[in-house]
Amino acid sequence: MKRLGIIGGGQLGLMMIVESRCLPVHFNVLVVNRDEPACKVADSVYLVDDYKAFVDNSDIVTFEFEHVDARALEYASSQNKLRPNMKSISLKRQRTLEKQFFTENGLPTGKFIICKDRESLKGAIKSFESGVIKESTGGYDGKGQYYYSGNKVPEITAPGPFVVEEFVRYDYEASIISCRTENGEFFSFKPSYNENFKGMLLSNKGPINLEQARIIARKLLDSIDYIGVLGLEFFVVNGQLLINEFAPRVHNSGHHTLMGNSISQFELHVRAVLGFSISEPISYANTGIVNIIGKILNSGEVERILQIPETRLYIYGKTETRKRRKMGHVCISSDSKDILSRRIDEVKGIIYHGERENPLL
Amino acid sequence: MKRLGIIGGGQLGLMMIVESRCLPVHFNVLVVNRDEPACKVADSVYLVDDYKAFVDNSDIVTFEFEHVDARALEYASSQNKLRPNMKSISLKRQRTLEKQFFTENGLPTGKFIICKDRESLKGAIKSFESGVIKESTGGYDGKGQYYYSGNKVPEITAPGPFVVEEFVRYDYEASIISCRTENGEFFSFKPSYNENFKGMLLSNKGPINLEQARIIARKLLDSIDYIGVLGLEFFVVNGQLLINEFAPRVHNSGHHTLMGNSISQFELHVRAVLGFSISEPISYANTGIVNIIGKILNSGEVERILQIPETRLYIYGKTETRKRRKMGHVCISSDSKDILSRRIDEVKGIIYHGERENPLL
Repeated sequence: MKRLGIIGGGQLGLMMIVESRCLPVHFNVLVVNRDEPACKVADSVYLVDDYKAFVDNSDIVTFEFEHVDARALEYASSQNKLRPNMKSISLKRQRTLEKQFFTENGLPTGKFIICKDRESLKGAIKSFESGVIKESTGGYDGKGQYYYSGNKVPEITAPGPFVVEEFVRYDYEASIISCRTENGEFFSFKPSYNENFKGMLLSNKGPINLEQARIIARKLLDSIDYIGVLGLEFFVVNGQLLINEFAPRVHNSGHHTLMGNSISQFELHVRAVLGFSISEPISYANTGIVNIIGKILNSGEVERILQIPETRLYIYGKTETRKRRKMGHVCISSDSKDILSRRIDEVKGIIYHGERENPLL
Repeated sequence: MKRLGIIGGGQLGLMMIVESRCLPVHFNVLVVNRDEPACKVADSVYLVDDYKAFVDNSDIVTFEFEHVDARALEYASSQNKLRPNMKSISLKRQRTLEKQFFTENGLPTGKFIICKDRESLKGAIKSFESGVIKESTGGYDGKGQYYYSGNKVPEITAPGPFVVEEFVRYDYEASIISCRTENGEFFSFKPSYNENFKGMLLSNKGPINLEQARIIARKLLDSIDYIGVLGLEFFVVNGQLLINEFAPRVHNSGHHTLMGNSISQFELHVRAVLGFSISEPISYANTGIVNIIGKILNSGEVERILQIPETRLYIYGKTETRKRRKMGHVCISSDSKDILSRRIDEVKGIIYHGERENPLL
């Protein structure tokens, strides 16, 4: 039986294990606390300081989140067990490197300027009428990002470096979940449409037609010599794609694959990193999700959601609720794109009570 | 959070929990040994002698197998927590009662004679040119069943009572997985085709068209005042259905719902017994399974199975392999019925090496 170590015990680790629980795999997880969601379905739980035993007792090590204690990643990498590799993480750890990598590899992205400190921001922001300043390290889900318009530098306490990106007037945002194996085989789900709100994914649905997405994803994964599932987000401008960012792991915009597909992104990732065979994911229906952010559903809300046809509820079992924290999601399917969209709106109405300026986000 | 107690820790309990792991449910399991498959995904594990604490700490109690220690079932029933009810189990515990119940409720079944002991078998078997003698208690997966032809009574050591059934020259066997809620709402998956070998399900595929199946299932579930998922098997003779038997639980012939459906039989059961809302299951693709019986797959077999498009592998993680023991199954999907059938044959070839008289069964 193959032994897979997953660094991190959040919802992505939980769903990796749940979706692959009946493959012949022994699942180890490395966590900070034993009450993290993935612990209840794992075979063995290790606390972070035991990272060496965790790696030593795993054939392959992957991660459910790239912003984790570096020791386990580096030790796993030194043992040649880490999938995907350190390169994909290094790029994510520093947005400056990520952006330069895109440019060097002919991967389409928006205009940007790299600033090594706060001082140099003043000049850089003048290059774009409006834009977003992003801290190079540590940001995700809209954290460490500052929108600006005109020449006024927003209040920032971080020391830099920063990436200043021109604000892209995109038509919409889209994602593709793709996958590459050790032998260089490439697979992908069909792209999906993202609805973001205050820098967080609120809902997502697919499939949509974006041939280019698959081509760009393949180029990216080949360039990094990537193994496993990767989430890639685009701005779509007049039918052209610009990479917004990527996540070197299973991704929130791929949760819709939990329904109506021949395989979910989670099982696909597990199979890819462990070297099990894979075939092209097939989509049998239109699928989408609505994220449950910053709240626990009450039983009335649960009931109203489950009354909607072709819905499934995913509650991550986190012990603490916080504003902007992802607590779960609702999966929704339909043969009809229109019905799917209506159901997504209905679910959003139930969770967020139709409040335009959602206080939970 | 609702607390569900599952009596039994086998693969059916495992899949109930895996498929519903992200619903807001606390799962208790009652088992003989802590190494049973369901234990690794449950929230709390109780050993059989602790059945009272198990029931007391559960809001609702269900079971993954009807042939279990009676104490837990009866105590749960006395607390009004058992779903489905004792009636459905009593009928299964005695085939004589089951057959009489079918007759009394106008549910179509083959000709049968009830014999209270071995002595009376001699006369009864003369009524049918060929048939099967079934022990009234304890039989499943072909156990306690004796085929005969002519007037020769097969060697039987059990004391009886027995049901003697006329051998039905059926065209094929089919199943329907249906579900009823406390409010009497009725739902079902589309029927599926069963391939049996030596009294065990070898493969299964669907959907097939059998309007009658849903009508008969509804009548049966209403007659028992049933709550939860029930598996119902038919002989199909010239397009007419005769009930072969039912299982008051999730059933092997419903494992195909793990792929290509809006919900699996396992989540449907959990939602039904806990009183969560349900909508009609929708099938998005043709789906089927092949059972893995009496063997552990080697890594080459695993690889060859996973190379087939649209397949998923379920290994139950049982610690001991025995002849005729279900060790796992392969789920297979396709938009095309023909391709599905070919893939099922391919999987059977990989597992059983094309041996006609399968030594594993």
